Amino acid sequence: MSTTHEDEQAIQTLIAQWARAVSAGDLDGILACYAEDVEAYDAIGRLRFQGLEAYGAHWRECMAYCNNGMVFDVHEPRVRVDGDLAVSYFPVRCGGENDKGEEQVGWIRMSSAYQRLNGQWKIVHEHSSVPFDPMTLKIMEDAAP
Amino acid sequence: MSTTHEDEQAIQTLIAQWARAVSAGDLDGILACYAEDVEAYDAIGRLRFQGLEAYGAHWRECMAYCNNGMVFDVHEPRVRVDGDLAVSYFPVRCGGENDKGEEQVGWIRMSSAYQRLNGQWKIVHEHSSVPFDPMTLKIMEDAAP
Repeated sequence: MSTTHEDEQAIQTLIAQWARAVSAGDLDGILACYAEDVEAYDAIGRLRFQGLEAYGAHWRECMAYCNNGMVFDVHEPRVRVDGDLAVSYFPVRCGGENDKGEEQVGWIRMSSAYQRLNGQWKIVHEHSSVPFDPMTLKIMEDAAP
Repeated sequence: MSTTHEDEQAIQTLIAQWARAVSAGDLDGILACYAEDVEAYDAIGRLRFQGLEAYGAHWRECMAYCNNGMVFDVHEPRVRVDGDLAVSYFPVRCGGENDKGEEQVGWIRMSSAYQRLNGQWKIVHEHSSVPFDPMTLKIMEDAAP
């Protein structure tokens, strides 16, 4: 294992930066975290998004619904690193205000993979989702860690 | 990057073995693929399963619904390896027969992380899900790659 404490710390820092950009609705800050060939499995919209152009367009659409920014609290990310590859996984408390100004918040879970490219860690894969109830086919809005 | 073609091939082989065990309803074959400290985000049931005991109990419950085995076709897994850490991600065509003997099949997407432990690759993290429609909160049964 060629993991160093500094590499793990660099991934934790990237997760925190990325999450701050999501909370703030900072689209440029969000997109700066991804590699060009990112493949993303988002909780909504499509089975997969291949490449930064497709995923960036999806982020732009999502952000249009979050004018006031959003709640996006990352919960104790687990990080594994070896050489130039890293993974993380963690629950996120996530939500925002609806039309009536009521806060609607629930838990999602996220998995990410990172590659060090020209000395910089970038997200090459991302997967976020909510589990569903197989009887109703509806998501489990009250699922929690 | 200390990736070798053999390491990538070993992960592809593990994915194929694991998927064959899932199709066949071979619980022991499935559980042999995981590390003790696996953390799993399954498409159904709970936000997360921590540890092989909890995740194994969930697999046992799921398998009780699939007496005739199931459709579980992995679609072109992307694999990245460095040293003793690996990740993969891929869509899966997944389903089975309902009570009336009708085949019900749809697409899910999966992400996995692997660690080489005592010379053997084991799954340390797994995430499978279906995207949902934010208007209805129902899963998108017709989402496809």
